[in-house]
Amino acid sequence: MKSATIVGAGLVGSLWAVYLSKAGYKVTIVEMRDDLREADISAGKSINLALSVRGWKAFKTVGVDKEIESIAIPMPGRTMHDLEGNLTYQPYGQEGQAIYSVSRAGINCKMMDIAEEYGGATILYNRKCIGADLDNGIVYVENTKTGEKEEIKSDVVFAADGAFSAIRYKAMQKLDRFDYNQRYIEDGYREILLPANEDGSYKLEKNTLHIWPRGRFMLIALPNEDGSFTCTLFMPHENHEYAFDKINTKEEVEHFFKTIFPDFYDLMPNIGDVWEDHPLSSLAIIRCYPWTHGKFALMGDAAHATVPFYGQGMNAGFEDCTVMWELMQKHKEDWPAVFEAYQKERKPEGDAVQDLSLHNYFVMRDYVGDPEFLLQKKFERRIEQLYPDKYMPLYSQVSFSHIKYSEAHTSGMNQDKWVKSVMEQHDVESMMEDGSIDKLIHQIVQEKGAFGRS
Amino acid sequence: MKSATIVGAGLVGSLWAVYLSKAGYKVTIVEMRDDLREADISAGKSINLALSVRGWKAFKTVGVDKEIESIAIPMPGRTMHDLEGNLTYQPYGQEGQAIYSVSRAGINCKMMDIAEEYGGATILYNRKCIGADLDNGIVYVENTKTGEKEEIKSDVVFAADGAFSAIRYKAMQKLDRFDYNQRYIEDGYREILLPANEDGSYKLEKNTLHIWPRGRFMLIALPNEDGSFTCTLFMPHENHEYAFDKINTKEEVEHFFKTIFPDFYDLMPNIGDVWEDHPLSSLAIIRCYPWTHGKFALMGDAAHATVPFYGQGMNAGFEDCTVMWELMQKHKEDWPAVFEAYQKERKPEGDAVQDLSLHNYFVMRDYVGDPEFLLQKKFERRIEQLYPDKYMPLYSQVSFSHIKYSEAHTSGMNQDKWVKSVMEQHDVESMMEDGSIDKLIHQIVQEKGAFGRS
Repeated sequence: MKSATIVGAGLVGSLWAVYLSKAGYKVTIVEMRDDLREADISAGKSINLALSVRGWKAFKTVGVDKEIESIAIPMPGRTMHDLEGNLTYQPYGQEGQAIYSVSRAGINCKMMDIAEEYGGATILYNRKCIGADLDNGIVYVENTKTGEKEEIKSDVVFAADGAFSAIRYKAMQKLDRFDYNQRYIEDGYREILLPANEDGSYKLEKNTLHIWPRGRFMLIALPNEDGSFTCTLFMPHENHEYAFDKINTKEEVEHFFKTIFPDFYDLMPNIGDVWEDHPLSSLAIIRCYPWTHGKFALMGDAAHATVPFYGQGMNAGFEDCTVMWELMQKHKEDWPAVFEAYQKERKPEGDAVQDLSLHNYFVMRDYVGDPEFLLQKKFERRIEQLYPDKYMPLYSQVSFSHIKYSEAHTSGMNQDKWVKSVMEQHDVESMMEDGSIDKLIHQIVQEKGAFGRS
Repeated sequence: MKSATIVGAGLVGSLWAVYLSKAGYKVTIVEMRDDLREADISAGKSINLALSVRGWKAFKTVGVDKEIESIAIPMPGRTMHDLEGNLTYQPYGQEGQAIYSVSRAGINCKMMDIAEEYGGATILYNRKCIGADLDNGIVYVENTKTGEKEEIKSDVVFAADGAFSAIRYKAMQKLDRFDYNQRYIEDGYREILLPANEDGSYKLEKNTLHIWPRGRFMLIALPNEDGSFTCTLFMPHENHEYAFDKINTKEEVEHFFKTIFPDFYDLMPNIGDVWEDHPLSSLAIIRCYPWTHGKFALMGDAAHATVPFYGQGMNAGFEDCTVMWELMQKHKEDWPAVFEAYQKERKPEGDAVQDLSLHNYFVMRDYVGDPEFLLQKKFERRIEQLYPDKYMPLYSQVSFSHIKYSEAHTSGMNQDKWVKSVMEQHDVESMMEDGSIDKLIHQIVQEKGAFGRS
C-alpha cells in the first residue's frame, strides 16, 4: 500500500490527510503536541480565523464542508467604530457573499476528527521532529513523553508544520541554494476575550467583523459561537506615540481604552484586569524556496506564513491542498513532477498573499475610517452589480473567487488607480445619491468596452 | 580576570582575540575544525582574498600589520583580457594605491599564530558548537574527537563563526523578532589553479588582478606567493547560454575555454583534466538583525556574509573589530551599551557592503570590457588628481578610505550620474587626449564649487 507521512496535525495537515486517504494512501500524521481535543482549549492561542471561498472549495472537494458549516459564523461585512462610538457598515461583497469566523482550536479539532474518520489517518502525538532524510522520505521523531526515538519512512512526506516548521529548519534550510527569509513587522498583537452577556447573547452585533481603525493601529473583534468575541489589538511594539511598550500598568491600559476605544471600554470596563490574560505576540512574514526536495514538500504556513490582515493564511494553505490534488491527478502521482509543478505554481501565490496581507493592514487600520475610501468601495460594488463579468473589486477577487492571488494583486492595483482617476473627474458621491452613476458606468463600457487602465 | 569566548578561529575571530587580550581579557577561541596549520592547506577552499585599507587599519591598531605584509601581493590595478587575448590595464586608484592578494589559508594561519603569540589566546580545536545560553554567556560545545560535551562560560561572547554561523542558527534565529535572510544569487563559482612555470615564475603578469569579462559571466585570476594563480570562474548555475550545467564533459570544458578564454587556454591546455579539482560552489548574501543578544555579538560573515565581487567581505569583518574596539573605549566596556551602539552603527554598513558587492559583479564581468566605462574611470581619476579633497571615485572610497560603506554607496551613485551627464555634454575622450580636460575640470569647480549633483 502507498504510504504518506504528514508532519503537523494542524489545519492544513489534517485536511491534506483526507485527500491522501482518498487517493489510497496509508497516512500517518506526526504531531508535536498532545491531542488538542483532549487539552484545555482556552489555553494557547485562541486567535480566530476568517474562512472564505478558497477554504470552502478545499472542503467541498473531499465532501467535508457540511461538517465545518456547523461551526462557522458568517460575516457579510465589516463594522467600523469611530472615536465617538459611531458605527459605519461596509458589505464585503454582493448579497449572499460573506467570510466566516471560526475558532482556530474549533476548526482544528474538527479537522482532526475528519482526518481520522474520513481519512483513516493515524495521528501520533507528542512526536517532536528532530530531523529528516529528505531523499529517502524519513522523518526522525522523538517521543516527548518517553524520550524514545523513531524513524518514520514513507513514499512521500508533507511538512505542514507551520510558520516555524521543524522540517524546513532542520533539513531544508541547510540545503545548498535554499533561500530563506523571516521578517518581523514592527507591530505585534494582543488578544482580549470579550465575554458574552450573562444570558449568552452577544455584546456587539454578531454577524460582522468589528474594526476600530485608528490610523497607525487598530482593534478588531470576531464573533465566537458562545456569544463571546475574540478581540485583537494590533499596534507597534515601540517607537510610536501609541505602542505596546507604553501600556504597562493597569492605569495605562484603562486610560488607553477609555480614550481610544470608548465604546469598547464601556462593554469591558475590567480591561485593566484581563490585559495580561493573553501574551503580547509578534507577527512575521516567512518566505522560502524551493518548497520541495526529494520526497518532501512544504505546505501552508511552513511554505508561506503571512501576517493575518487579509484573513487568507488558512485559505491559502487549504488552496495548496486543492492545487496539489489537481497536480496529483494531472501527473498521475509521479511525485517529482507533481512537486516541481506545485512549487512553480504556488510560490508566486504565496508571495502574493503575503504582499496582499501587508497591504490590507493599511486598509483595515486606516482607510476603512476614511469616507472617500468607503465611497470608492460603494462605487466599485455598483460597477460589479451592473457588469459582474467585467469588474470584480480586489477584495472580492481575493475572498470570493478562485482567481490567483498574484493576478488579483496585479489587477487590483490597476483597478484602484483607474477608479481613483474616475473619482477625480466625476462627483461620484452626488451621482451615487441621485442614481446618475449608472449612466456613467454604462457610458464607460460603451466607450472603452472595459473598466481599468489597460 | 575578565574573560571572553570567541566562536570560530577564522580571520575575524583570530584578529579579535588580539584586541581583547590587549584589553586584558582571558580569551578562549572554540573552533570546529582541526588546527588549520597542521592540516593539508591545499584541501578545502583555496579562494584568494583581496586585502585593502580597512583591513590594514585593523592590523595596525594592534601592531600586527608587518606580519601580514610578508604574505600580501600588491595589485595596483586590473588587467582585462578580451576574446582575442588583447590586454587593457586600469589602475584601481592613484600612484601608490593597491589592493593586496592574500590566500585565505595563509592569512588565517598567520592570524592564528598572532592570536596565540600576541593575544595569549587559547584555541580549542574540534569543538562543534551545539547551542548557547545567550543571556548567561554560555557556549555549549561537543568535542568531535571524543564526543565529550562541555560548557564554556565567560563574561562576553563573540560569534565569528562565518556565513553559516552555528550561534546564529542554533540560538539567535529562534529569538522572537529576529530577522533573517539567506539569499543565493543565480551564479556559482569554480576555482582553477594555474600553476607557476617550471622555474617558479608567473605565467601572467604578477602584480595585477586579471579579469576575463564576458558580459554575463567572468573568469578572474589572483597571484599566489608560489608563482601560481588562483583563478575563479563565476557563471550562472543554469538557465543561460553559458552556464555551469552546460559544461560537463572534458570536451565541453575544453571547447568552452578554447573559444571563450583562448589566451587562458593556451596557458592551461590541460584544463579539461583539472576541471573537477575544485567543487562547484554557490554564492549567498546573508542578512540578519539584531546582531547582538544578551552577552553575545555576531561579527564578520556571521553578521553580514556577502558575495565576493568587491573584495570587501574580509575587510568589512576586520572593520567590525576596529569599530567594536572604539566602542569598547567609548563605553568603558559597558557591554550592553557597546553592543547596542555596535549593531546600530554596523548594520547599515553590512547592508551597504552587500549592495556594493552585488553591484560590482556587473562592473567586473561587463563594464570593465567597455571602453566608455574605462574612459569614465580615467576621467574620474583625473578629477581626483586635481581636486583630491573634492572628489574621490567610488572604488577608492570603498577600497582606499575609511569612509562608511553606506556613505560611499550613496555618494558613488550620485557621482556616477553626474559624471555620465558631463560625458554626454563634452567629448571627454578628445579632451583627455589633448589635455583640455583639466580646463573643464577647473571650470566646473569655479562655477559650482563642487563635483556631483547635490
